[in-house]
Amino acid sequence: MKKNKLAIVGVGHVGSYVLADAMKLGLFSEIAVIDKDEGVAFGEALDQQHATALTYMTNITVKAGDYAECGDADVIICAAGPSVIPSDEEEMPDRAGLAVTNAAVIREVMAGITKYTKEAVIIFITNPLDTVVYIAENEFGYPKGRIFGTGTMLDSARLRQIIAANYGIDPKSVTGYMMGEHGFTAFPVFSRLNVQGFGEKELDKVFGGKEPLDRETFRQKVIKTAFDVFNGKGWTNAGVAQAAVTLAKAVMLDEKSVYPVSTTLHGQYGYNGDVALSIPCVIGRNGVERQLEIGLDEQETAWLHESAKSIQETMKTVKTGKAFIGA
Amino acid sequence: MKKNKLAIVGVGHVGSYVLADAMKLGLFSEIAVIDKDEGVAFGEALDQQHATALTYMTNITVKAGDYAECGDADVIICAAGPSVIPSDEEEMPDRAGLAVTNAAVIREVMAGITKYTKEAVIIFITNPLDTVVYIAENEFGYPKGRIFGTGTMLDSARLRQIIAANYGIDPKSVTGYMMGEHGFTAFPVFSRLNVQGFGEKELDKVFGGKEPLDRETFRQKVIKTAFDVFNGKGWTNAGVAQAAVTLAKAVMLDEKSVYPVSTTLHGQYGYNGDVALSIPCVIGRNGVERQLEIGLDEQETAWLHESAKSIQETMKTVKTGKAFIGA
Amino acid sequence: MKKNKLAIVGVGHVGSYVLADAMKLGLFSEIAVIDKDEGVAFGEALDQQHATALTYMTNITVKAGDYAECGDADVIICAAGPSVIPSDEEEMPDRAGLAVTNAAVIREVMAGITKYTKEAVIIFITNPLDTVVYIAENEFGYPKGRIFGTGTMLDSARLRQIIAANYGIDPKSVTGYMMGEHGFTAFPVFSRLNVQGFGEKELDKVFGGKEPLDRETFRQKVIKTAFDVFNGKGWTNAGVAQAAVTLAKAVMLDEKSVYPVSTTLHGQYGYNGDVALSIPCVIGRNGVERQLEIGLDEQETAWLHESAKSIQETMKTVKTGKAFIGA
Amino acid sequence: MKKNKLAIVGVGHVGSYVLADAMKLGLFSEIAVIDKDEGVAFGEALDQQHATALTYMTNITVKAGDYAECGDADVIICAAGPSVIPSDEEEMPDRAGLAVTNAAVIREVMAGITKYTKEAVIIFITNPLDTVVYIAENEFGYPKGRIFGTGTMLDSARLRQIIAANYGIDPKSVTGYMMGEHGFTAFPVFSRLNVQGFGEKELDKVFGGKEPLDRETFRQKVIKTAFDVFNGKGWTNAGVAQAAVTLAKAVMLDEKSVYPVSTTLHGQYGYNGDVALSIPCVIGRNGVERQLEIGLDEQETAWLHESAKSIQETMKTVKTGKAFIGA
Repeated sequence: MKKNKLAIVGVGHVGSYVLADAMKLGLFSEIAVIDKDEGVAFGEALDQQHATALTYMTNITVKAGDYAECGDADVIICAAGPSVIPSDEEEMPDRAGLAVTNAAVIREVMAGITKYTKEAVIIFITNPLDTVVYIAENEFGYPKGRIFGTGTMLDSARLRQIIAANYGIDPKSVTGYMMGEHGFTAFPVFSRLNVQGFGEKELDKVFGGKEPLDRETFRQKVIKTAFDVFNGKGWTNAGVAQAAVTLAKAVMLDEKSVYPVSTTLHGQYGYNGDVALSIPCVIGRNGVERQLEIGLDEQETAWLHESAKSIQETMKTVKTGKAFIGA
Repeated sequence: MKKNKLAIVGVGHVGSYVLADAMKLGLFSEIAVIDKDEGVAFGEALDQQHATALTYMTNITVKAGDYAECGDADVIICAAGPSVIPSDEEEMPDRAGLAVTNAAVIREVMAGITKYTKEAVIIFITNPLDTVVYIAENEFGYPKGRIFGTGTMLDSARLRQIIAANYGIDPKSVTGYMMGEHGFTAFPVFSRLNVQGFGEKELDKVFGGKEPLDRETFRQKVIKTAFDVFNGKGWTNAGVAQAAVTLAKAVMLDEKSVYPVSTTLHGQYGYNGDVALSIPCVIGRNGVERQLEIGLDEQETAWLHESAKSIQETMKTVKTGKAFIGA
Repeated sequence: MKKNKLAIVGVGHVGSYVLADAMKLGLFSEIAVIDKDEGVAFGEALDQQHATALTYMTNITVKAGDYAECGDADVIICAAGPSVIPSDEEEMPDRAGLAVTNAAVIREVMAGITKYTKEAVIIFITNPLDTVVYIAENEFGYPKGRIFGTGTMLDSARLRQIIAANYGIDPKSVTGYMMGEHGFTAFPVFSRLNVQGFGEKELDKVFGGKEPLDRETFRQKVIKTAFDVFNGKGWTNAGVAQAAVTLAKAVMLDEKSVYPVSTTLHGQYGYNGDVALSIPCVIGRNGVERQLEIGLDEQETAWLHESAKSIQETMKTVKTGKAFIGA
Repeated sequence: MKKNKLAIVGVGHVGSYVLADAMKLGLFSEIAVIDKDEGVAFGEALDQQHATALTYMTNITVKAGDYAECGDADVIICAAGPSVIPSDEEEMPDRAGLAVTNAAVIREVMAGITKYTKEAVIIFITNPLDTVVYIAENEFGYPKGRIFGTGTMLDSARLRQIIAANYGIDPKSVTGYMMGEHGFTAFPVFSRLNVQGFGEKELDKVFGGKEPLDRETFRQKVIKTAFDVFNGKGWTNAGVAQAAVTLAKAVMLDEKSVYPVSTTLHGQYGYNGDVALSIPCVIGRNGVERQLEIGLDEQETAWLHESAKSIQETMKTVKTGKAFIGA
């Protein structure tokens, strides 16, 4: 009988939180942990296996293994590779700088996975996320939709949290998201942002926020908050792990939820197979089941193209895409 | 109106997992994070605050702060101080060696907390756990029962998981625990161990385990598995964090659950105020509401005294207890 | 030490489901059940108390009692009184016809509660909901905001579910609600309805629904679906119980969530203390902490006034409101 | 892609609670509801479908249907047939009296199910439970282990709750169960009962209970409490529904949990294919994976045979078993 199975590739700061969060879902019967450092994989699996003996915990089989574990997995979450390359204290870390290292990592991971399956839905967290997704989605003949990245799911959570904090409300009451690159050039879709139907222009008046909802200010706040976490603790993992696990649940239970995730565009906004970035998508048992092209205003459209260009610059450094993005 | 509030002191490997697990309970309205490294506290709180904007998450206020945050906390979980002092690869880390460092840490923490409250129930995770609990419980005039340590709650989960794995069953179906020191000298109470009523002598025959239930072998397995986690990933956190959060829930909801936790003995097994170690206790809104003296067989009794002695040796190094334990 | 306590008044079809759902939250330490049929209260409490002995269940104290139990309750959910007065099979039940009966019931309930507390937040489910809320909120000197009704929270869930089913997506991805009366004259705020920012006019094109999003058609669908449940099983309880429990959690944990609930208007849309109906509100530890007046288009405004008038007609029959609503 | 699917046959008082509880698990992607009263099935499914649009709820597809829905179900829970035949107020209802009616119901249900599947694990709740299980398990060529009944899972929860209440502790801290018939002749296995290792003879002394743990008194208490619920509210459903859903989760996630469930004995206690009753079993993806014969003392052994005899009497009335149990 088929059992619900998750595989996690890479259990550093991020993957270990993905594992911890997945343990709490009551959804998976088996979780396999794969890491090039086999000791770490073994240690993480064993530590969580111990936890299953505590009250309220589901009896999940947690084990360390190799790519063969992907063979019967329903969902694979990949957090392999370094999550950031730190830089000088005052500066922000350079995500693009990770590209060369992690492109190699992801090509190895995909080679490993595809030896055993092209059925599982694969969710990527590894940065630079959009470039990583582009490589995984386009270089291995994997079925369309079954590979995507957490993308701006996390940036969007940050946006909603910041908006909610400004107005003293629950972030779950905020509808809104960031699009584009997961990183510096992500942008909030202000024209569609709303709190239970109250739109961008009404929020200040209705909710009397701590400060006015200025587009540039709030866009910067969202980007800055990521670095506040990074500068505070040295990495970011809690938010993105929860994002990945939320997506994994939407897949396993075929929820058809609309979330902003990163996937190669096919005609949307004039891009056709030459960039991966986050737009709202319908997530179900087959991964990305629909990509939704939402109308943007002038400023947002400019932001989108800027963001796409930034991703394509990164893609060039790892030689991927349509004739290497025109190189 | 009173809100359910948890404070976490120390958010390293262990405290950050406590935070992550506590976020999933749907029980706390507010979680305060206190760490001498304010950046880390800030980063952890912010990262988790972002996660509250994701589907299914409760809107918890997560914030970094100082000991003043303990003033209106219902429960405080303390994971401050280094969790292990690593040693040579082939050897086990020396928990007793932590005593001097962490005794100082805990005296500082308790001074900080008691400036603001003697009401909150405080759950300690910091090692060497039993010595830490002894100090906190006996040197600050805190109300009896309101301070205890996770103790052998984790060792017990490991025992049940190992027993369950041997027989191919759910660890939740195993009733059993370790007593004594949290660490090297902890011992399983084999005479009381059972799987839904099947006792120590029946398990092999009924369940046909992978190997015979030899007392010494299985005692060693439980101790070894801790070091397997430690040697694999460099620390242990998942199991103990889940243990602490389970106890916090039992407190908040006044569950009156019987768990093995560490607390100063008052007459049990001949100890009276001169050692803290884990025995089964009833955990409710007032912390440890009853300490239960369970009958042990000869071997277990010997193990208990050995374990108590080992803890008292550690206590001496930090000058705590009845005339410094006879020194 | 203060424990989290819920009281449920009335455990018929609806109240018993509220109890069942509340048992699963892991949030309450104690739940008291009050019913004029003491046998039913006793039986429901005991049946649920048995369930606490099963794996994964929180140890909640569940007990039957009288209004004295409200004295230390944090939240009270009232589902007392008949939920519908059935009529001929082909016709819809008459909610207004319940008014006289349930006005008396609610006056008795409020007299009972206020003998012991004016602190607890009270959430009403009893129909005709808006009239019931009006009476409870205005005739007993209860602190403002601490009384409200589930109102169109359920109607709104139905709206989102119907919209989601039309487009093949997760209802959690739909932002939208009904306003006005809980019942016949409730209306969807189509002008603010959106699926992750895609508005009323875009949904058909983007998602290719089963049928076009015609306002009148979908408004009727939402009203009809309530009667489909009623005609199918004889009552409706699952949705409304979940709604009440969601609101109770928002209160207990001070989530500041924006939900459409029923409360007496104070200046919004030209009504001032003369009608209770559902508009979006911020729900926190003090109940309704803010009432939000959202701009409506011409049709919606007409629907609102129609709905208010319908409620006021019902209010007249139970002699409540400003000089009995102009009578 | 395979989706997690539950089918529920019979949605009266019990089945509707099974549905409500299953909605909260976050485990099933699809739930089909089957009832001979199609209106009730439709109403229950629709009411719960509405609830999926509320915060925190998983997007489950809930639908009414016929036995064809069982074709791809992983687990089927059957609560079809009347749950009790009421009798005079002062007397207990007669479970055996249900046998003729529900034997016919279950034969029809099994004929319906087996037209579409012999793969799904089927969990029965219908009373008289043991006779119903015997019929379903032995007359339709269904694979061994894939059919079982909730049996004394509920009676055991009651036992633990009563023991726990006597000693003022969490029922989750009590290990113990009832065996035999689900009903009048069920008996507690006192010789194996323990609270974290404290056995029958120690409990009074250690915990100081409200009354002494007399075997006959407490056996009667467990049986009486069922009738207290029944006499109070007119039926019992909350406990048994939670029991069924707990078992369904153990199956879906292959937890290998040890629970007392009803299944035909094959050699245990001298019975071989001639009676179904509850003994502890290992529950996993294949249903009952092991039946465990626990040693009983003299009194318990007598109780067991009495209970088996009582079940066989009932079996005779519906002409099932080895040459109709020697008739």
